[in-house]
Amino acid sequence: MRVLVVDIGGSNVKLKGPRVDRLKFRSGKWLTPEKLLQEIKLITDGWRYDAVSIGFPGVVKRNRILQEPPNLAPGWLRFDFEKAFHKPVKIVNDAAMQALGSAPKSGITLFLGLGTGLGVSIVHDGHVIATELGEAHVHSVSKAALKRDGKKVWISNVQLMVEDFDRLIHPDRIIIGGGSVTRLVPFRKIFPNPNIIAGHNDHAFQGGVMLWKKVTHR
Amino acid sequence: MRVLVVDIGGSNVKLKGPRVDRLKFRSGKWLTPEKLLQEIKLITDGWRYDAVSIGFPGVVKRNRILQEPPNLAPGWLRFDFEKAFHKPVKIVNDAAMQALGSAPKSGITLFLGLGTGLGVSIVHDGHVIATELGEAHVHSVSKAALKRDGKKVWISNVQLMVEDFDRLIHPDRIIIGGGSVTRLVPFRKIFPNPNIIAGHNDHAFQGGVMLWKKVTHR
Repeated sequence: MRVLVVDIGGSNVKLKGPRVDRLKFRSGKWLTPEKLLQEIKLITDGWRYDAVSIGFPGVVKRNRILQEPPNLAPGWLRFDFEKAFHKPVKIVNDAAMQALGSAPKSGITLFLGLGTGLGVSIVHDGHVIATELGEAHVHSVSKAALKRDGKKVWISNVQLMVEDFDRLIHPDRIIIGGGSVTRLVPFRKIFPNPNIIAGHNDHAFQGGVMLWKKVTHR
Repeated sequence: MRVLVVDIGGSNVKLKGPRVDRLKFRSGKWLTPEKLLQEIKLITDGWRYDAVSIGFPGVVKRNRILQEPPNLAPGWLRFDFEKAFHKPVKIVNDAAMQALGSAPKSGITLFLGLGTGLGVSIVHDGHVIATELGEAHVHSVSKAALKRDGKKVWISNVQLMVEDFDRLIHPDRIIIGGGSVTRLVPFRKIFPNPNIIAGHNDHAFQGGVMLWKKVTHR
């Protein structure tokens, strides 16, 4: 199956088609679903795909957006993506999509998506649980916090957050992804614990493709 | 396989053998692992079992206790249960054991174990994740809080806690178990939402037996 993956972040929308490298355009408070579709249709003109996966920066459950997202324009709750794409669409939380594409198959992986917001997902044996557990820390580790507090304070806040989640969830490993992970350098100096791993935004695309694979172990 | 299930709570230890109804004795700050074994051996004299499952009121990971429990005597960290029982032993967090025995097989179940402490576990398609997420609310919903604040305030605190977890995790259902669930009456008046379900302590025993069943869907 050929999947178009749309990874909507608070700052950028990233696109990847089955035979096309990733492309991106700006996201933000101006982005309505209508404008998203307009941009995507311009960019993907001529691309061939059978289905669409969307990573969405907000609360999603059973293929439905449950709340208007904090970092985009309003209007998402009732938007019909399948009608707009003329294709089957799967939509999940953006951190959950990247978590799914990043996590090893066995054990408990906690995924922390550092970006405009803070996405927190738990992956257990290939199943992903998106949570809103980021809300307790988002104020101190968001992109806005990095700008406001400076890199030194921000890095120390990220370290405290990681310690806090490690104690709360006791995962087998923590993967730190999202756009801001590139600011955590040198990563092994900031996180000497080998069970704390730097993720990569591109794993979101693998997660998007995995959404369409049959779960064979149920 | 014949399993002896030992459910160690902060107030009581409950025992169940393969052909014996459940029995209990007092737990508490006096309980060391040596005293636990002494009591169990007295009670279970003549019982036949092949393996032991222990639900433990503290942090357990990969069959090992990671921290001294807050509501028992110290001495648990290095205790060798297999040596003491002369049997194979599986030990998990107590809320996780009850969660496993309580949750339907499909979807995401959040289990809240209301007792001396607050145990919080997430079950996803038959896999259980024990967490320490209870720490933010334990002060207001513990047995001590019920005694301190009275039933009316306590019930309203439990309602607030359930709302909070529902928003943070968005599970398909919330099961409220632990000893204090019997104080939430009438349950449907306190929780009209049909996805919020009253659990039962006895499910801990089913969870204990399930620990020894082969996971067939992996």
